[in-house]
Amino acid sequence: MNILLTVAYDGTNFFGWQKQEGKKTVQKDLEDAISSLFKKPVNIRGGSRTDRGVHANGQIALLKEQTNIPIQKLPLAINSFIKNNEIVVKDAIFVPKDFHPQNSVYKKTYIYKIFNARFLNPIFRNYCCFEKDELDIFKMQKASKYFLGEFDFKAFCASGTNAKTTVRTIFDIQVLKQDDDILCIKVCGSGFLYNMVRIIAGTLMDVGKNKILPCDIKKIIEDKDRTKAGKTAPANGLVLDKIYFN
Amino acid sequence: MNILLTVAYDGTNFFGWQKQEGKKTVQKDLEDAISSLFKKPVNIRGGSRTDRGVHANGQIALLKEQTNIPIQKLPLAINSFIKNNEIVVKDAIFVPKDFHPQNSVYKKTYIYKIFNARFLNPIFRNYCCFEKDELDIFKMQKASKYFLGEFDFKAFCASGTNAKTTVRTIFDIQVLKQDDDILCIKVCGSGFLYNMVRIIAGTLMDVGKNKILPCDIKKIIEDKDRTKAGKTAPANGLVLDKIYFN
Repeated sequence: MNILLTVAYDGTNFFGWQKQEGKKTVQKDLEDAISSLFKKPVNIRGGSRTDRGVHANGQIALLKEQTNIPIQKLPLAINSFIKNNEIVVKDAIFVPKDFHPQNSVYKKTYIYKIFNARFLNPIFRNYCCFEKDELDIFKMQKASKYFLGEFDFKAFCASGTNAKTTVRTIFDIQVLKQDDDILCIKVCGSGFLYNMVRIIAGTLMDVGKNKILPCDIKKIIEDKDRTKAGKTAPANGLVLDKIYFN
Repeated sequence: MNILLTVAYDGTNFFGWQKQEGKKTVQKDLEDAISSLFKKPVNIRGGSRTDRGVHANGQIALLKEQTNIPIQKLPLAINSFIKNNEIVVKDAIFVPKDFHPQNSVYKKTYIYKIFNARFLNPIFRNYCCFEKDELDIFKMQKASKYFLGEFDFKAFCASGTNAKTTVRTIFDIQVLKQDDDILCIKVCGSGFLYNMVRIIAGTLMDVGKNKILPCDIKKIIEDKDRTKAGKTAPANGLVLDKIYFN
């Protein structure tokens, strides 16, 4: 059976999604829980290798195992074996045999949150990046539109990537005010390069602080030079919101 | 000098505001930070004794000390001595000599947050109460209006209170949808009895689950019987939002 899980987690205390020897990771804790439930070692494959400190609302994980547990009861059954409350399996569905947690995916949505006030409210310290300088949201909104479309996003990719191509498509991007003090950047794309959303967020924050103009984004993309884009914004503001698959 | 601090904190890891022998409390950690800054022991008096797990966006604390630090620099100076990032001093102002952190207060606003979905998103586990049964927000909104005005709120007070009177005035109450899955109850009143906001939240959740009718609230208030109101909703959903003073 090919079972696809939808998983949410608070990434604060994890060294990211991917298993790493001797480190607390989401994949490891989730595999441990499913292994305890199935009484045998199991492996899962994630849809996105989120970094240390990054959160997820809709990560996916593929599980290839036989089970008698009814599919609709599987999330609760797995959750009962998760040792802490930092990970929650929200859904489980059957997917075809040829489903692939990366290749079957056609778009993903990420949300980047910024707490923009003189002082950071402590309850958001792990879930927002903190920026005390005032951000001009209208300029950020204007700038965001230059990301729409298919481009070579080499300037928005951390060095050392092993991606075959740095061309990606951004289908939608929005800069929204959530609460009084929180700005959200919602971005939906065909896929994302390593640190791409965090570099987009860092660059849009430079626009918001009037360090660069909205129209500069076009040139930064065209130049394909990582040093011309903004800093990589911190991991704690990032949430993998949703993965769309065929 | 009479200095009034505005303080925000993540209450998750604290045994509440009030100092208690051998326990980590907000008052203790804040007094320790100010004592380190002033190089002598100082005491502060809070505006509201928030319980274990309750958060604050706008707690107030009165500090009676002489200092050469300019008042507008005091928040940053104190924050630099706070050992963790769970407490933040947001503001400091001078107040008159006769200012009293309880008696000078004429209203307070609390927010109670409920995560209402099949599964709790882990990033909200310390900041929302979780309710998996669907809540009818329209009924909750209708019910909330019965709290408006001056009443004897004995039915909404935990036993063992030493309040002189259980009469309080609710100036405003709203039930709002924040995100897809989060409901907020915002309540503003002349003051609140022990656990009052959490009992109001628990009772409104009973309305949302169709256990009681919106119009039942009137009778519950009139009967002044704690057993007729709903359960005390968990502490983690509660935020002391703002304290208004003369």
